[in-house]
Amino acid sequence: MEKLKALELIKNVLPEKRYNHTLGVLETAVSLAEKYGANQKKVELAAIFHDYAKYRPVAEMKSIVSEQNMSDNLLKYGRELLHAPVGAYLVRKELGIDDEEVLDAIRYHTTGRPFMTLLEKIIYISDYIEPNRSFSGVDEVRLLAQTNLDEALLKGISNTIYFLVSKQQPVFPDTLAAYNHIILKEEF
Amino acid sequence: MEKLKALELIKNVLPEKRYNHTLGVLETAVSLAEKYGANQKKVELAAIFHDYAKYRPVAEMKSIVSEQNMSDNLLKYGRELLHAPVGAYLVRKELGIDDEEVLDAIRYHTTGRPFMTLLEKIIYISDYIEPNRSFSGVDEVRLLAQTNLDEALLKGISNTIYFLVSKQQPVFPDTLAAYNHIILKEEF
Repeated sequence: MEKLKALELIKNVLPEKRYNHTLGVLETAVSLAEKYGANQKKVELAAIFHDYAKYRPVAEMKSIVSEQNMSDNLLKYGRELLHAPVGAYLVRKELGIDDEEVLDAIRYHTTGRPFMTLLEKIIYISDYIEPNRSFSGVDEVRLLAQTNLDEALLKGISNTIYFLVSKQQPVFPDTLAAYNHIILKEEF
Repeated sequence: MEKLKALELIKNVLPEKRYNHTLGVLETAVSLAEKYGANQKKVELAAIFHDYAKYRPVAEMKSIVSEQNMSDNLLKYGRELLHAPVGAYLVRKELGIDDEEVLDAIRYHTTGRPFMTLLEKIIYISDYIEPNRSFSGVDEVRLLAQTNLDEALLKGISNTIYFLVSKQQPVFPDTLAAYNHIILKEEF
């Protein structure tokens, strides 16, 4: 799919602020892809469509999770997690995007997971550090992303776990698994 | 097993400081057992023997984990975790203690797990708050333990996750599962 066509499609399903966030993710992801040698076309598609399902009704997202036999855990850990796997499902179904690497980058952009691909790391980190983001700790991750993608990923995930625990909110098991995977530098 | 006999046995396998810690855990656990209605005899045994394997050689503990088909994860997440499940194994084998509730309280006193029993919670928390403990956050957990055991457990586990993440150390999956279990107040 052409970039301009993709941008037109996503603009139609997102509020302006979220569209601007998407442009920020796109800009950041393209820059990281150049730096770390990822496929530009895949990075563009994943960045543009990472929040494709963000504004779908929660009931619709829950139905899709159930009907498509996605992990029950997704329904237990809060609605914020649903749009990523549901987005991966819908961009294939509605837009015909069937590149599994692109779909995985969309699918895991919120939770992370162990064994993340370069593309997945770039989308996860770009979502975290794109220029419109201004929360505590983001500048440190921005800086790390310029020199070491795994360190940036580890810091971003660590901040997320810390934030969730400080708010006494649940932490999705795959997020901890992603953290442990980097820390232990082991295949497990 | 009689309490005095148990104390004599444990004194022989622990350095003085760790024995004093054990006496602190015992005192705290007995007090919590009275407050929350746990079986005093089981609490005594679990408290006295919770660190039974603490000073076994790491190689011996690793061998036992492998030979007894305990989770491979135990070998990946650091030696600090080994003494709890190995202790449960050894107090049965060497001392003949075969009460599964007591053994589980020993087995899970370091990591926690979802669906913890009252006995497991009391030993976990007593190990965290006994009078010789003086780390940051311990007083808050002491206070919570007087009114709500689950809140105390949640705070203790949260502090542990926070501490490990701040040190970029791995977090055992069951520890996060214990945290999520309390947060989500769901059976999963």
